[in-house]
Amino acid sequence: MNIDLRSDTVTKPTKGMLNAMTQAQVGDDVFREDPTVNELETRIALMFGKEEALFFPSGTMANQTALKLHTNPGDQVICDKYAHIYNYESGGASFNSGVSCKLIDGNRGMFNAEQVLEAINPNAYYYSQSSLVEIENTTNKGGGACWDFDEILNIRKVCDDNKLGYHLDGARIWNALVAKNETAKQYGEVFDTIAVCLSKGLGCPIGSVLVGDSEIMKDAIRIRKIFGGNMRQAGYLAAAGLYALDNNIERLNEDYKKAKEISEELTKLAIIESVEPVETNIVIFELNEDVNENHFLQQLAKKNIHIISMGDRKLRMVTHLDYTDIMHEELINVLNFI
Amino acid sequence: MNIDLRSDTVTKPTKGMLNAMTQAQVGDDVFREDPTVNELETRIALMFGKEEALFFPSGTMANQTALKLHTNPGDQVICDKYAHIYNYESGGASFNSGVSCKLIDGNRGMFNAEQVLEAINPNAYYYSQSSLVEIENTTNKGGGACWDFDEILNIRKVCDDNKLGYHLDGARIWNALVAKNETAKQYGEVFDTIAVCLSKGLGCPIGSVLVGDSEIMKDAIRIRKIFGGNMRQAGYLAAAGLYALDNNIERLNEDYKKAKEISEELTKLAIIESVEPVETNIVIFELNEDVNENHFLQQLAKKNIHIISMGDRKLRMVTHLDYTDIMHEELINVLNFI
Amino acid sequence: MNIDLRSDTVTKPTKGMLNAMTQAQVGDDVFREDPTVNELETRIALMFGKEEALFFPSGTMANQTALKLHTNPGDQVICDKYAHIYNYESGGASFNSGVSCKLIDGNRGMFNAEQVLEAINPNAYYYSQSSLVEIENTTNKGGGACWDFDEILNIRKVCDDNKLGYHLDGARIWNALVAKNETAKQYGEVFDTIAVCLSKGLGCPIGSVLVGDSEIMKDAIRIRKIFGGNMRQAGYLAAAGLYALDNNIERLNEDYKKAKEISEELTKLAIIESVEPVETNIVIFELNEDVNENHFLQQLAKKNIHIISMGDRKLRMVTHLDYTDIMHEELINVLNFI
Amino acid sequence: MNIDLRSDTVTKPTKGMLNAMTQAQVGDDVFREDPTVNELETRIALMFGKEEALFFPSGTMANQTALKLHTNPGDQVICDKYAHIYNYESGGASFNSGVSCKLIDGNRGMFNAEQVLEAINPNAYYYSQSSLVEIENTTNKGGGACWDFDEILNIRKVCDDNKLGYHLDGARIWNALVAKNETAKQYGEVFDTIAVCLSKGLGCPIGSVLVGDSEIMKDAIRIRKIFGGNMRQAGYLAAAGLYALDNNIERLNEDYKKAKEISEELTKLAIIESVEPVETNIVIFELNEDVNENHFLQQLAKKNIHIISMGDRKLRMVTHLDYTDIMHEELINVLNFI
Repeated sequence: MNIDLRSDTVTKPTKGMLNAMTQAQVGDDVFREDPTVNELETRIALMFGKEEALFFPSGTMANQTALKLHTNPGDQVICDKYAHIYNYESGGASFNSGVSCKLIDGNRGMFNAEQVLEAINPNAYYYSQSSLVEIENTTNKGGGACWDFDEILNIRKVCDDNKLGYHLDGARIWNALVAKNETAKQYGEVFDTIAVCLSKGLGCPIGSVLVGDSEIMKDAIRIRKIFGGNMRQAGYLAAAGLYALDNNIERLNEDYKKAKEISEELTKLAIIESVEPVETNIVIFELNEDVNENHFLQQLAKKNIHIISMGDRKLRMVTHLDYTDIMHEELINVLNFI
Repeated sequence: MNIDLRSDTVTKPTKGMLNAMTQAQVGDDVFREDPTVNELETRIALMFGKEEALFFPSGTMANQTALKLHTNPGDQVICDKYAHIYNYESGGASFNSGVSCKLIDGNRGMFNAEQVLEAINPNAYYYSQSSLVEIENTTNKGGGACWDFDEILNIRKVCDDNKLGYHLDGARIWNALVAKNETAKQYGEVFDTIAVCLSKGLGCPIGSVLVGDSEIMKDAIRIRKIFGGNMRQAGYLAAAGLYALDNNIERLNEDYKKAKEISEELTKLAIIESVEPVETNIVIFELNEDVNENHFLQQLAKKNIHIISMGDRKLRMVTHLDYTDIMHEELINVLNFI
Repeated sequence: MNIDLRSDTVTKPTKGMLNAMTQAQVGDDVFREDPTVNELETRIALMFGKEEALFFPSGTMANQTALKLHTNPGDQVICDKYAHIYNYESGGASFNSGVSCKLIDGNRGMFNAEQVLEAINPNAYYYSQSSLVEIENTTNKGGGACWDFDEILNIRKVCDDNKLGYHLDGARIWNALVAKNETAKQYGEVFDTIAVCLSKGLGCPIGSVLVGDSEIMKDAIRIRKIFGGNMRQAGYLAAAGLYALDNNIERLNEDYKKAKEISEELTKLAIIESVEPVETNIVIFELNEDVNENHFLQQLAKKNIHIISMGDRKLRMVTHLDYTDIMHEELINVLNFI
Repeated sequence: MNIDLRSDTVTKPTKGMLNAMTQAQVGDDVFREDPTVNELETRIALMFGKEEALFFPSGTMANQTALKLHTNPGDQVICDKYAHIYNYESGGASFNSGVSCKLIDGNRGMFNAEQVLEAINPNAYYYSQSSLVEIENTTNKGGGACWDFDEILNIRKVCDDNKLGYHLDGARIWNALVAKNETAKQYGEVFDTIAVCLSKGLGCPIGSVLVGDSEIMKDAIRIRKIFGGNMRQAGYLAAAGLYALDNNIERLNEDYKKAKEISEELTKLAIIESVEPVETNIVIFELNEDVNENHFLQQLAKKNIHIISMGDRKLRMVTHLDYTDIMHEELINVLNFI
């Protein structure tokens, strides 16, 4: 039994999902003729109350496209120091869009409207032009933390006052919706663009979707083509997405329950300095200073338990669809004996 | 019965291919752990005698990545005026890599070594720096024409003498290999990088592969990530590719036979000015000046026959895996009655 | 006596101009406080009937800024195959703005409205987006030819119909104005932006100016700063420009007279295949096939006469402010004895 | 009497400098034939013990060119949060070179080798690639602070160990050399490239110079051309530089003396919270929380004293060549009566 808690991206399709994929009606999406892709895009647009949606081969491409739609070369994007677009997209923001990030020193990947206001550059030609605020919900490097929706609204106000775009990296937005009992429409009303991922909590093999109203999305398909994200019979992947929307959202609660239980176990361990509060399916914890991180990771690996380092002596465990009850029992057991 | 001759990209997986996809072993390719992706990459690298291969969601991304690997911003790429990278990739060469194209006025998308030599800019700082020669085999806009391999070798010599990279857009290289009885290894020995497509003649739903030796491919995965081409459980798509390599290459001859028969029929028609020589699966022809192109396309469409315009009053038909014998009979029949 | 006909950029300030420079009132132009720069900008804006003008250290930067103001990355600029922006700006169009050029096969660097119409890409997402038409007047590589103003107007109409910007590289616009008895205002009414050079026919050491109305010029100063074109006490250079506007425009006729006389001499020579019609201060001619170009250039150099090659066996002579009557006599003399 | 302490860039050439400019031998630097530019470049290269030097119209362009020479698109530059390249170059780093900055939270614009080591990204394809460390000496936003040379050497070691380039923004390097009794050669031995400014402490109207060895400088002239920084008869500007090297370096000590005296006066004022230590010619101070910044600036302006805000309630005064003894007396006087 291999217990893989490195990420919720490691899931493989369930039988039901694979069945849905096999039976998908497909067409050439470059000609926009794939009925299943079209169905998925329409459905997600409706969920978020936006006019358009576009399917992407990855969340990175959905985010990078959004950055390009909102900015001009030389502009600055305001985001948290933990932001995925700054840390884990290979410098794509500057490569693809010629923009830089103004990092906010937030709390677990989250910040407030006042911090945004301070991060906006003065309007003089020798400053980079602030043009976009980007947030992540739930936060990845912030340990799956969920934003307070009121703060999201406060930041919208700052964006309006200062003519800034507002993009949500919703790679794990489904996790937030379930954890906080919020709706997709709520988010659609606030953000100009939202990237949602089908391959993390939802368990699909491939795919993200970017939603927005027609004006901002006008060039999205062109940008996707420029990056090479136009796929042909992508309906097989979209079918997995449709299946996941029907079957895999509510069950995220199970992942949270397990994550909380893991967190409680970890808290008891002497070798662990601290465990960040668990709100969804991510557990981030810090080892005591005298514990060797690599040694710890190797010990777990010997027990077929795999987790990853987040840098700064922090480690991460992520629960997901393929992390079963039996694995969970086994993990708790192993933790008890460390 | 819908007869779709717009492109060989419209094919849908056969039962056998779909079966192979469903049974694929998969993993998270972002961690490089998808066994089927790895198998496909290894196999194609070996076929072309190159050290590395990388799977991409599209041929456009494989080409765009190659352009980036070979160039620096401001450089110039020497290619034919018909080149896909210049005409049909949304200006990606300048968007992604900051390079321009020096177009050669070739013959059916092909040119010779002397023309390359003339296209190289002098070595002075106010000229754009020539750094790459790119050719397409078979040529798309050139009507599926196959390059003379000797000329390919002559151009290699010019590249060596002038320190230029040499990239092959092999979106339809399988067509050339079969038509000219050449081998993948022959091509691997000549070119620095080759992009091959699985979704055209080979009938896969999605996917291209870029091959090259380790030194030039060193940053390929980083560039793919920057574009957002890193997918998760991509093994489903790779499995289709493996199936196609086993089953769908030799059968391309059937597409050529049909294409030649179509060409012969078209030649007889009074409304047609000329038909370009057919070497593979593409038929490009020109209507007489007094024939209205849109009217002609609509008439065919009424008979459920779909073809596309290539601009300059040229029309294109492409035969493929899903263009059956019965469709072929029907098409010939319709052409007889125009 | 050194006779330098390589370019009209080799001129050195006259005593009068140098005097004007020395006495210039200056300030820090980064704070926009250089009174002489401000005066020059205002004056040139008024001449062309535009709302704004901005001083640049070079014509290349004025052009590159204009390209950026009119385009987005991935776009295409329609221009002649002889265009300076395509041939002699080091690939800057794609480096700085991420755009490519769609080259028109014009006549001596000039083309017509119909050719522009044909060069516009169809409006589909896989094409590069046509967004700007750029012309040069007089044409450099076209041998100082002057555009027919009616054709300039015809192209304006095509731009309007297709929402394209319209930029004039007026590096030698003063030459055209004098040769054709046209006014700066005429040009200002037609083009969205115009780059004019002070250091060619006008004899200044350094400087170009970009003019346009406020909307299109809004980000010009930011782009100039990004390129590093913001200078401090630039009034010394601007003073030369003001002096030149007062003193060096009408005298361009003298350069034309000399250029025509040179052309007549060249026509007589057996070793010369052809001489392009001379309209202003540039003489381009082609040697007979059996004449060695380098040898010819060296022979002239021995007589202290310096001219340059334009490629394709063409040579160029440019008359200018520092090419005196005595030099002219000497040159004619030398040509007689070749 | 107008007392302008906003920046040391506001200086106007002295009579001697203007005289040197007027008598300069010039030529067309695009052909590399300006003897005075060549002389200046050779002299500064020798001073720093580097193989090459190149003249630029601004320090921003010299820095932006260096960034491009050291990096590829997508890379990351490690620098202080106060860095001029991050804060005051209009986002040029990402516009021109497609790179982002990894900001170090330094002390008065300076940091140590350990902080650099922490700022280097791990070598995985989803991280931006760290490729350059950039420091500023003296620091502008850091209040003219001078780096400890030992720390500069420590950072060199980190660069070597991690294959990072090392660039010095020496806009005010002359100030550091004089203040710390260091030599240009010392700096040339440590850094790969150094940008030095002629128009700040040295009092020239225009110009910066980038130095480095031949290999790294190979494309510098091409990049300068791409930005449009190639000027024609630039010898007039270079002559000012040569004059300044002879006459205006040692006198920087006078600026420091005045700066220190200003700082002492400011320290006495009740309305001022704190004054940063003064090491060279920059005085940065903070007003008490209850003092209105705009009001304070206006009051000074009424007395014809002009200073600027640096953001975060900090104000800056810079002493320079045009800030005379009489002005100094007057300023001290005014400060006494606030």
